[in-house]
Amino acid sequence: VSGGVATADFVAAAIAGDRRAIARLISRFESGGEDCAAAQAEIYRRAGRAHIVGITGVPGSGKSTLVKSLVRELRQAGRSVGIVAIDPTSPFSGGSILGDRIRMNEIAGDPGVFIRSMATRGALGGLSATALDAVDVLDAAGFDMVIIETVGVGQDEVDIVTVAHTTVVVSAPGLGDDIQAIKAGILEIADIHVVSKADRPDANRTVRELKTMLTHDVHRHEARGWHPPVVATSAETGEGIAALNAAIAGHRAALAQSGEFARRGRRIAEVRILREVDRLVRRRFGDADGPALQRLVERVAVRDLDPHAAAAELLPPR
Amino acid sequence: VSGGVATADFVAAAIAGDRRAIARLISRFESGGEDCAAAQAEIYRRAGRAHIVGITGVPGSGKSTLVKSLVRELRQAGRSVGIVAIDPTSPFSGGSILGDRIRMNEIAGDPGVFIRSMATRGALGGLSATALDAVDVLDAAGFDMVIIETVGVGQDEVDIVTVAHTTVVVSAPGLGDDIQAIKAGILEIADIHVVSKADRPDANRTVRELKTMLTHDVHRHEARGWHPPVVATSAETGEGIAALNAAIAGHRAALAQSGEFARRGRRIAEVRILREVDRLVRRRFGDADGPALQRLVERVAVRDLDPHAAAAELLPPR
Repeated sequence: VSGGVATADFVAAAIAGDRRAIARLISRFESGGEDCAAAQAEIYRRAGRAHIVGITGVPGSGKSTLVKSLVRELRQAGRSVGIVAIDPTSPFSGGSILGDRIRMNEIAGDPGVFIRSMATRGALGGLSATALDAVDVLDAAGFDMVIIETVGVGQDEVDIVTVAHTTVVVSAPGLGDDIQAIKAGILEIADIHVVSKADRPDANRTVRELKTMLTHDVHRHEARGWHPPVVATSAETGEGIAALNAAIAGHRAALAQSGEFARRGRRIAEVRILREVDRLVRRRFGDADGPALQRLVERVAVRDLDPHAAAAELLPPR
Repeated sequence: VSGGVATADFVAAAIAGDRRAIARLISRFESGGEDCAAAQAEIYRRAGRAHIVGITGVPGSGKSTLVKSLVRELRQAGRSVGIVAIDPTSPFSGGSILGDRIRMNEIAGDPGVFIRSMATRGALGGLSATALDAVDVLDAAGFDMVIIETVGVGQDEVDIVTVAHTTVVVSAPGLGDDIQAIKAGILEIADIHVVSKADRPDANRTVRELKTMLTHDVHRHEARGWHPPVVATSAETGEGIAALNAAIAGHRAALAQSGEFARRGRRIAEVRILREVDRLVRRRFGDADGPALQRLVERVAVRDLDPHAAAAELLPPR
């Protein structure tokens, strides 16, 4: 154990809100030693009170700026916020590409805010089990809201909706066609739409387009008991930030009233279990049973065996 | 079995190059019935001759246009090409977002070209096992080259390098800062760099920047025995397309000479096996052992159990 401190020793301090303990506990979970299992279990059991909010959008939509404004608003209302910012992973270093470079330095000194940038890292893509561990740590440490911010497009956005109570999708006016096409696919996961850069003259058109799109989905929304609002915000003028905060709180209240909150809790639990199964499989066969896997790899590489059959050899029916 | 035809019946026809059989076999593999296992095994054993080329880049980099030009060049040289175009997945429909909408209609009538758009779909993100099955089908059907084209940023690009022999990263001049930051992270996976839109006045600057960046990595490239070239291309003028084709062929020859080709083959095999393990776990616990999983979900949802412990219950040590 590095530094002579067992992972378990950080747990009580992290739960008490000690920032250094929170940071080190997340780092320990990232490095993923067997030493972590008991600490993860304890943290998980102590978590469960925070409102988990996913904020996503295509590159250029102004997510990071929006999060900064939202955090300022929440802090003025006396609410604490943890942020897990998911960045694309470098396949070689395994580290985060964007890192803290473009993060919110100005609010980093506030004890009611904790920001952690993480690489996606998951060997199978999307939100890593480690990122979800970090959400647990911030939740258990007592932050009222934990924001998961994803950069990028594609599967990360699919994942965020499976682990957040409330998903906010950020659109911006005037992005290119290529971005717009990708954006179209992530709009449907939104509990709340934000049109950022509302000070731009073409923002009204984006708001109208979203509202028109939502009228097509009205039956799905009726069934869920929630009609996603469209909130126009401007980091320049501060427009809409209070309305966004109110919409997020309103969504949580609606979830609780409709019973959907418990349903989402079960869905999140299922996703979490399956991610852990994957992590366990990888750890077991990648390390301890390494030679067994390597023998199969050689056979599959020369096409003496197919990958499906190799997987079945690793996981025989019970 | 839909249509009364067993999946196995498509295998021989697909291997013989029957386009309809290829298409239906990929669809069967996508729907993923147990009926598919023997066919997947047969296809996998018959595959292994195609040059698998991953082509990726950030949104707006002109990937699709580049692929179209490259395919035209390959066809003129008498080589056949299969293309698996990976699109972001809709989390609700499970279908592809972009679909064939922006695909290469003009070359779709050529019998030496087969294009398949697929959603990422993988429950854990990134390239799905199904997409890799489709690559196998096109490989077994005798296409000389199989191109995997990814749209988007992030984990898909990480994945592509683990399943392709040759990875091409497309950059374009004049993209926004947000895109540029993401781009920086995927440049390092390139075996070959392309600067598209070389007819633009700022393209030279992008070429220079890439070459400068590559001088920093020269030791890593020495170790691998390959220095990634930078190829400037223009879909407008046709500039650089022949050079790109030559660079791809040159990379394959270099891989074979250095022994790296066999190493990449083993890496690809390992990735394939681990993806199948994941698929198997999900199938086994998501379907047959559903009740066992659901009981654990309830306990994890109320934080009576943590996800790590639940995973260990599903996969007890042998």
